[in-house]
Amino acid sequence: MEKCCTCEKCNAALKETLSIIGSKWTFLILWNLYEGTKQFSQLQKSLQGISPKTLSLRLHELEAKGVIIKTVYPEVPPRVEYSMTDKGNNLKDIFGELIKWSNNCLK
Amino acid sequence: MEKCCTCEKCNAALKETLSIIGSKWTFLILWNLYEGTKQFSQLQKSLQGISPKTLSLRLHELEAKGVIIKTVYPEVPPRVEYSMTDKGNNLKDIFGELIKWSNNCLK
Repeated sequence: MEKCCTCEKCNAALKETLSIIGSKWTFLILWNLYEGTKQFSQLQKSLQGISPKTLSLRLHELEAKGVIIKTVYPEVPPRVEYSMTDKGNNLKDIFGELIKWSNNCLK
Repeated sequence: MEKCCTCEKCNAALKETLSIIGSKWTFLILWNLYEGTKQFSQLQKSLQGISPKTLSLRLHELEAKGVIIKTVYPEVPPRVEYSMTDKGNNLKDIFGELIKWSNNCLK
């Protein structure tokens, strides 16, 4: 692991990443989008317990940070879809480690 | 990455890990404890903005899940220290990936 325990660089890097993805809902939103492009309603349905306001806020934050893309189709009513960017897909290794830890340490 | 997008096993494993470490403060608490054993006051000082109640709750949850150990020394007043278990130290790879993503994707 790259950790250098007294290094401000690692501290800053970790805090920066956590400021973008460091909430339970954000992890789960990204996890859903790994399966492919999704509409708001699909995300809301698969994320039991999330409020529309929280979902909308998290999606807006992720879009602003370039982790996901929002595409609006000029239909009536307009169709809105969310999908991962390359930056977002680069997060997959983190999810792999989260899963590995559970499989190795929680069984 | 171990992700099998439609696999319930990956879903369950991810949610289980997030249920234990999936909050911003928990990541930062663990990050502090990687530097070594700490007392409550030391953790509180280095985690600007956390309330004593939230810190106490997060530490209790981590202890209950076997991620950290709480040691109470019979002094007056009693000295209380927190340190990582092997299960906790196994989380380091997740932190490595969080740092790597920031260094690769946010610069």
